[in-house]
Amino acid sequence: MIDKVIAHIEAQKSANVERLNELLRIPSISTDPARKGDTRKGAEWVHMVFAGCGIKSEIVETAGHPCVVADSGPDGGGPTVLIYGHYDVQPTGDESLWKSPPFTPTIRDGAIYARGSADDKGQVLTHVFAAEAWKKVAGTLPIRVKFLIEGEEEIGSPNLDPIIQKLHDRLSCDYVALSDTPKFDMKTPAITYGTKGLIYKEIVVTGPKQNLHSGSYGGTLTNPGNAVAVIINSLRDSKTNRVTIPGFYDAVRPLTEDERKRMKALPFSEEEYRSGMGTPALTGEEGFSTLERRWARPTLDVNGMFGGFTGEGASTVIPAKVAAKVSMRIVPDQDPEKISQSFDQAVRAATPPGVKVEILNHSRASAYVSPMDTPGMKAAAAALKAGFGKDPVFIREGGTLPILPLFKKVLGAESLMLGFCMPDCNAHGPNEFFHVDDLHNGTKAAAHFLDQMAKAR
Amino acid sequence: MIDKVIAHIEAQKSANVERLNELLRIPSISTDPARKGDTRKGAEWVHMVFAGCGIKSEIVETAGHPCVVADSGPDGGGPTVLIYGHYDVQPTGDESLWKSPPFTPTIRDGAIYARGSADDKGQVLTHVFAAEAWKKVAGTLPIRVKFLIEGEEEIGSPNLDPIIQKLHDRLSCDYVALSDTPKFDMKTPAITYGTKGLIYKEIVVTGPKQNLHSGSYGGTLTNPGNAVAVIINSLRDSKTNRVTIPGFYDAVRPLTEDERKRMKALPFSEEEYRSGMGTPALTGEEGFSTLERRWARPTLDVNGMFGGFTGEGASTVIPAKVAAKVSMRIVPDQDPEKISQSFDQAVRAATPPGVKVEILNHSRASAYVSPMDTPGMKAAAAALKAGFGKDPVFIREGGTLPILPLFKKVLGAESLMLGFCMPDCNAHGPNEFFHVDDLHNGTKAAAHFLDQMAKAR
Repeated sequence: MIDKVIAHIEAQKSANVERLNELLRIPSISTDPARKGDTRKGAEWVHMVFAGCGIKSEIVETAGHPCVVADSGPDGGGPTVLIYGHYDVQPTGDESLWKSPPFTPTIRDGAIYARGSADDKGQVLTHVFAAEAWKKVAGTLPIRVKFLIEGEEEIGSPNLDPIIQKLHDRLSCDYVALSDTPKFDMKTPAITYGTKGLIYKEIVVTGPKQNLHSGSYGGTLTNPGNAVAVIINSLRDSKTNRVTIPGFYDAVRPLTEDERKRMKALPFSEEEYRSGMGTPALTGEEGFSTLERRWARPTLDVNGMFGGFTGEGASTVIPAKVAAKVSMRIVPDQDPEKISQSFDQAVRAATPPGVKVEILNHSRASAYVSPMDTPGMKAAAAALKAGFGKDPVFIREGGTLPILPLFKKVLGAESLMLGFCMPDCNAHGPNEFFHVDDLHNGTKAAAHFLDQMAKAR
Repeated sequence: MIDKVIAHIEAQKSANVERLNELLRIPSISTDPARKGDTRKGAEWVHMVFAGCGIKSEIVETAGHPCVVADSGPDGGGPTVLIYGHYDVQPTGDESLWKSPPFTPTIRDGAIYARGSADDKGQVLTHVFAAEAWKKVAGTLPIRVKFLIEGEEEIGSPNLDPIIQKLHDRLSCDYVALSDTPKFDMKTPAITYGTKGLIYKEIVVTGPKQNLHSGSYGGTLTNPGNAVAVIINSLRDSKTNRVTIPGFYDAVRPLTEDERKRMKALPFSEEEYRSGMGTPALTGEEGFSTLERRWARPTLDVNGMFGGFTGEGASTVIPAKVAAKVSMRIVPDQDPEKISQSFDQAVRAATPPGVKVEILNHSRASAYVSPMDTPGMKAAAAALKAGFGKDPVFIREGGTLPILPLFKKVLGAESLMLGFCMPDCNAHGPNEFFHVDDLHNGTKAAAHFLDQMAKAR
């Protein structure tokens, strides 16, 4: 049966491109209140595809933009997969930087250029088209498939937690699958099996009630700018590049020998990576490779600092207030709450006498890592190989997807992240693109995935 | 003869207030190109006072605003004093913060409120009025007095160095005297005998070519924000509050026992000083008192820092560039050039691998301290006591007056700083004021000063 499904997908190629383009023309920018109606249109468009092929679907209202929740219905008792994705998109940014208008999909050099083409409309539609193909060709899906396609991913999914709690029974599943991460490179599909968590803080140091003349007062009070430097310096060892917050590494799950070997085997060019960033040299925590640092080791970074005189030239003030935004990416099994408290304690302990320190909390999310040896992981790997003609690589991601620990906590399900787009697809920048071949190969992989999952039972 | 001169000044009180008000009505804001004509009017007004009493005076052109150079002519061979001052003023700032218009001098509670009343029109006129009084009463001055009254002090005296070099012979003198510093408090006149020097730097740290996603890249490169903290932290010991740049203290001239005793004896309230700044606690270099730190110990202060995301909330970037403005106040006999080089070396040595550092130089000036036991100093002290009815205190100043080492270098003369205005006279802020009594007592003190100098020969 899978051969017939693949043949159907092959035959639908140009229709599928045209349908993706239709969705891409809807400017469903979730952060823009003026696009509220367009964002809903995105949900309605996805809902109609399910309705059109007989997959039960509903537009579920939230406190913000709606979700599309669909269900292929009971099957013969195999595993159930919940496909997660999102139909909302990032703002366009400066439209003059786009070579073609962001909501007028344009094909150049085999790629569809449009906002949302890779993140996530093009990628999520591979799964929708695959389910539709199964339904049309076989009359039914090889396993039970549910869909949760939300409209608020690009604004931090503020209403996803309550919706999953509320629809707990309707969304129950054995695995979550999503395609919102990239391939490893042009030719190599990837399964992302881990993401880092995030703790984002702001350290605000205040001294005198207003900026003071550094000549008249200097030397007799603690300068908030010097104090911020002392505090931040205390949080990291600049020789070993390790975080020095007490207990910070206690719960860090070590990389397995298998993981380290697999990362080492990846065709990764340090020099290309360095020159891509444009930084003078690669540095990082001693004892780990660049990919290990990037994907699997916790970090602490200044995101911004500001205070005192910041104009051109010189002004001899002692700043009344200096602040630094500082965030940590954490890994399994670091507990965000514990690390957050240890951070606060370390900052207070490092604050020199003579200034006040306030610590603001901006966000907090757990890391996620999936077990490698599950039937779902094996099925996903086989499906990617079948769709792209090449074994996928297993990678992790330094960024944060708060939904993954959420699915694990509420639904008890592990997530499978199947990446179809290019790593440099400009997801949040101008000229976002998705290769036409990746749409088709991704759709085939998604069809194989359901087949493989059925066999995995 | 001095009694007659004082009697004349007493008789001239209201005329002198009216003449000061006349000068205060001229908005001689040197930094404002639109006030170029008004600034020149300030010079012309001062020139006319000299001309009116028979003191030879000239308006000397510079590349910017002109100077008034006057000379009482040869006397009987005593010491020659050069009176330095300035007729230009600071901008008004937000005029809505002024209780009366800044260029409409208004007397409230015994003080003249106007821009420039204390800094420096009111204070420099005490010397002009005193010289005039001597000339009118005695027909001649007790010593030879020269005047250099410039129009660019508030913009950093950019043309003073060449003018002093050029007029070297005409300005030659045994002492420079100036009144551009405050009294110690309401009742106590002060002689300021030392100022700190200044070295102002900007440390610019660059890493990647643009801001990077802290999840995707964090942990694999040196973060310029963390690097700036490491660098600044390395320059000072936050426990001892001492600067850690190698050799920094080598040339620092220790406070004499006499100085320390004198500072200790001053009626200085730490708690009033602290609450005036609104800072939680007084801190500073170990082993020194607050006044010693403020006036006589070198310091290193952050004046501003900026880079990365500085808006509201959170943005997970690794900044491409973070900069910090850092300045040092130096003391005798630290060499600005040497300290500047040591600073640069220390910054480079502390810069972690993986980022580039650039060091910008914004300004550099030497410290100044006058010997205490000169005949001039004794004459100044006696004059202040005669004028204000109370012995002056000897203080130093944390701020920087680059003209003092310039006079020392070019003319070989020590400076005597006689302070007549209040320490909280709002010199550069709204509602600047000068007490009417301080104008009169200052004029008397200036007259006594010439008398005392004549006796000191």
